[in-house]
Amino acid sequence: MSEAELEQQPIKLLRTSESESLQKIRHTASHVMAMAVQKLFPKAQVTIGPWTENGFYYDFDHPESFTEKDLKKVRKEMIKIINRKLPVVREEVSREEAKNRIEALGEPYKLEILDSIEEPITIYHLGEQWWDLCAGPHLANTAEIDPKAIALESVAGAYWRGDETKAQLQRIYGTAWETPEQLEEYQRRKAEALKRDHRKLGKELGLFIFADPVGPGLPLWTPKGTILRSQLEDYLKQEQIKRGYLPVVTPHIGKVDLFKTSGHWQKYQEDMFPMMAEDEASAEAEQGFVLKPMNCPFHIQIYQSELRSYKELPIRYAEFGTVYRYEQSGELGGLTRVRGFTVDDSHLFVTPEQLDDEFLKVVDLILSVFKSLQLTNFKARLSFRDPESDKYIGSDEAWNKAENAIRRAVEKMEMNHFEGIGEAAFYGPKLDFIFEDVLGREWQLGTVQVDYNLPERFGLEYVAEDGSRQRPIMIHRAPFGSLERLIGILIEEYAGDFPLWLAPVQVRLLPVRDAHFDYVKEVAAKMQAAGIRAEADTSGERLGKMIRNAEKQKIPVMSVVGDKEVADNTLSIRTRASGELGAIAVTEVISKLTTAIAEHTIF
Amino acid sequence: MSEAELEQQPIKLLRTSESESLQKIRHTASHVMAMAVQKLFPKAQVTIGPWTENGFYYDFDHPESFTEKDLKKVRKEMIKIINRKLPVVREEVSREEAKNRIEALGEPYKLEILDSIEEPITIYHLGEQWWDLCAGPHLANTAEIDPKAIALESVAGAYWRGDETKAQLQRIYGTAWETPEQLEEYQRRKAEALKRDHRKLGKELGLFIFADPVGPGLPLWTPKGTILRSQLEDYLKQEQIKRGYLPVVTPHIGKVDLFKTSGHWQKYQEDMFPMMAEDEASAEAEQGFVLKPMNCPFHIQIYQSELRSYKELPIRYAEFGTVYRYEQSGELGGLTRVRGFTVDDSHLFVTPEQLDDEFLKVVDLILSVFKSLQLTNFKARLSFRDPESDKYIGSDEAWNKAENAIRRAVEKMEMNHFEGIGEAAFYGPKLDFIFEDVLGREWQLGTVQVDYNLPERFGLEYVAEDGSRQRPIMIHRAPFGSLERLIGILIEEYAGDFPLWLAPVQVRLLPVRDAHFDYVKEVAAKMQAAGIRAEADTSGERLGKMIRNAEKQKIPVMSVVGDKEVADNTLSIRTRASGELGAIAVTEVISKLTTAIAEHTIF
Repeated sequence: MSEAELEQQPIKLLRTSESESLQKIRHTASHVMAMAVQKLFPKAQVTIGPWTENGFYYDFDHPESFTEKDLKKVRKEMIKIINRKLPVVREEVSREEAKNRIEALGEPYKLEILDSIEEPITIYHLGEQWWDLCAGPHLANTAEIDPKAIALESVAGAYWRGDETKAQLQRIYGTAWETPEQLEEYQRRKAEALKRDHRKLGKELGLFIFADPVGPGLPLWTPKGTILRSQLEDYLKQEQIKRGYLPVVTPHIGKVDLFKTSGHWQKYQEDMFPMMAEDEASAEAEQGFVLKPMNCPFHIQIYQSELRSYKELPIRYAEFGTVYRYEQSGELGGLTRVRGFTVDDSHLFVTPEQLDDEFLKVVDLILSVFKSLQLTNFKARLSFRDPESDKYIGSDEAWNKAENAIRRAVEKMEMNHFEGIGEAAFYGPKLDFIFEDVLGREWQLGTVQVDYNLPERFGLEYVAEDGSRQRPIMIHRAPFGSLERLIGILIEEYAGDFPLWLAPVQVRLLPVRDAHFDYVKEVAAKMQAAGIRAEADTSGERLGKMIRNAEKQKIPVMSVVGDKEVADNTLSIRTRASGELGAIAVTEVISKLTTAIAEHTIF
Repeated sequence: MSEAELEQQPIKLLRTSESESLQKIRHTASHVMAMAVQKLFPKAQVTIGPWTENGFYYDFDHPESFTEKDLKKVRKEMIKIINRKLPVVREEVSREEAKNRIEALGEPYKLEILDSIEEPITIYHLGEQWWDLCAGPHLANTAEIDPKAIALESVAGAYWRGDETKAQLQRIYGTAWETPEQLEEYQRRKAEALKRDHRKLGKELGLFIFADPVGPGLPLWTPKGTILRSQLEDYLKQEQIKRGYLPVVTPHIGKVDLFKTSGHWQKYQEDMFPMMAEDEASAEAEQGFVLKPMNCPFHIQIYQSELRSYKELPIRYAEFGTVYRYEQSGELGGLTRVRGFTVDDSHLFVTPEQLDDEFLKVVDLILSVFKSLQLTNFKARLSFRDPESDKYIGSDEAWNKAENAIRRAVEKMEMNHFEGIGEAAFYGPKLDFIFEDVLGREWQLGTVQVDYNLPERFGLEYVAEDGSRQRPIMIHRAPFGSLERLIGILIEEYAGDFPLWLAPVQVRLLPVRDAHFDYVKEVAAKMQAAGIRAEADTSGERLGKMIRNAEKQKIPVMSVVGDKEVADNTLSIRTRASGELGAIAVTEVISKLTTAIAEHTIF
């Protein structure tokens, strides 16, 4: 995504909850739709019809299924209603009066709804021919809806009250915007999001799978997806080694006691997998093992295994640590919300004097990682605690010190930032990097946290220059955040078109005829020996088919090989990034590829 | 360990269970010891006195603690008894008679022992002055013990019947051999084993820790130990990529159902960690997650995620997969028996036609790995099922086919091998590589398994050339076996003296004076940039201390840097492998080191 392309998207699309105007438009549009449906299909009974973040829906009880064609008719009817400029009028009625009017209509669902709502009972009228129970708010007149800014999207099944044992309804989804341009942009983004959906692309490109027998939210990485993971890991490992990080490896489980000391058991238990206990007595006594939801308590154990001197600090332990969190299965989706994921985790143990400098160095690393991944559109969130909540551990003093350290850092770096109250980790405040993707969606990526609390709880110490025992401060940090989520986001951001260095297959060689098989195999072997992920397509398919396959797999570099290339010892190169590059000597191709891969550039 | 050194150890030391002669010697020696103790310490009462695999012990009830000096006296007394050439005579007596004689002696422990043994009741006499209840066997005469082949080793506390609530006893450990040479070799090996103990060296070299709050058998890898792990992993990954293996990554947990399909739940459950279930109802219904004890069911899921063609086979999935097994805590010891460990696991899915060839290729890889690690002393065990046991899954036909495939391979390779009946995995037979270390101890390292059963249980298929659906065969294999155990063994085998390519710190530069700090830092940075793990010692300690520290840390290459080296841009090199090499230009040192590291040779 180039700068130029980003500039072509000035249209900001707000979510309904962010805009009172959109709330009214969408709520009113849903009523208009319901009126249109009942006009066209007199047997249809309406039930509920709320707004959603991007539009609205209404659930209908109707004996026949609504078709695509029906939706078109409904939309036409909606435009007629809009053009009739019907006033939208709020009326407050007694429960008795509401009941009488509903009974007159003969709509039993409305009666049930009436039973479940509280006073004041309000009715919204569209002109004089249609009304529904509704709390509002609404536009003043249907004419305020731009008929070119509405669309009906789909029909899906739904149960009355979301209860499978009750009547099956039909839900019609629609959307409505302030302007036709907004609608167009929304539809473009929606189509693009569908095309870029990492679950779809992940399947097409063969990157990962989910398997029912393993369980929801637990991705299994295929060979191609594993290349993505290891490229990202290797890249960050190198960056970290340069910056004095020390890799460590720790178990995925620990005794419950460990997490009591850290406070996870008290404050984070509902996000953890159930305990593994030998028997009921052990379970009652909370003696057992748990899967780790975070790596910090383990890195602390390594820190604590020796008496540390101020000379050793800062100590920066780093681990690609796979953690497990017990998300509700309804919340799981592709790679962006999973139950097992790998954090590019690190814990720094620093003296108070080192805190500011180390914090800035961490931020610097995170920014350089984002740059290398071409993730340019982000802002920093100061995720502080909500002082009213009891979900945190530690003293006010510790929290203030930690929050101030973060504030100092963003001010010093003059970073684009905002505060997120209540977004802190339970043990300390965070600086989170919120990335906005090409479709305007926001994702949390890297994070840095300042923590005075776990050092206190674990009684961490170091011997200061004057011989006294002092308490270190911990910095928790993860530039990627979760490797799984990062890859999900990258798939969508790149639309599966991975940069050369990340691409699971970097080069595919396509022989025009079987006679060229030996040559492509030989060249592929040379490339592999040079560390390039090259493949020879010896499927024997027709050239057109081979080219289409390579394109479908979004392989960055392909080369068609015929008599001329074999004779000249060249390759005709065609890249996704730069198009046709013509015939180039094999040795030159290999050397240029090697450089481009090492430098994260294009061929 | 050079070939020459290995040849200097021709003395084979058998374990007691392997030699009837040693059984008799040790058993008789234990009686001689008990007689000697009772002679010298008339208040001492004897309890039990069995042989152990390397010697024997006897437990005594005695009011005063035995000292080192006492042991010397006991040994002298034992020699006297031996020299008296006392006949060892077996006598069968009635329970009544035994009871009478014990009561005459006034030894209540013997009465308890009498109550717990079955007929025939036998007594062994040493001459006419001493006897004990004993089932034998024994030598015919104390003179058959070589007084120069016995030693008393230590005294430790023990409880009567191993029960903490009962009387505390004193256990005297001794050993006895056929010849003084055997004793000497045993004592040499014991001292050497103590020096090489990986738990001791692991601590001294700072490679790994165990932490009580995490739990027993769950090592945490410090930065230095993590280097060992990653060097081994990277090395094997490269070898595997060359051989067409495909790395994958899978979760550490899966639903119970997955392990029911695989048969682990039925046949392997007692080795697994307890289930994680949301609540009691789920637990009862066996709906929950379990930590994986093996990686196979996960790799099978990836295989099954697409319809496979014969053209794709063999498929070789590889993963450094961390698995968890619920070993009893009493069985845990250092790295060689742990509860969480990383298997260099791979599963090959092959056609019947490919089986033999792929099996041989796997064996070839394993042998090349052993060679690269300088593990030369091993033999192959054909680990077959015990046909009498019910701990296996699958048909006789499948087992026979699999066992025959393994037999064909070892015969074709003319490998030194033996059969181990009952040593198979529950799903198939194995070819295990048993390594004998420099101390004559045996360790199981790599393994290859042929498996017709899991493909059947999971209903695996591929489309054969004729379009029919066929069942693939699986090969499970792990050259290292467990990364943890391998490292434990390597630490002991190398006595902590890691070859250059594995050493956590490869080079340490020691400046004679502070004035040389800049130079050593600069050279260290150059080495680091070349991928060499180099350190500059800027502790400011005296040179002698710095040298001793480097030696203690067993750093393969050290270099003392003074005025001359700075002036000439050289390094005075001293290596553990080759001694003093004199002054060498910095660039030459770097280039030679780089080559030696890449080629796994010495500097």
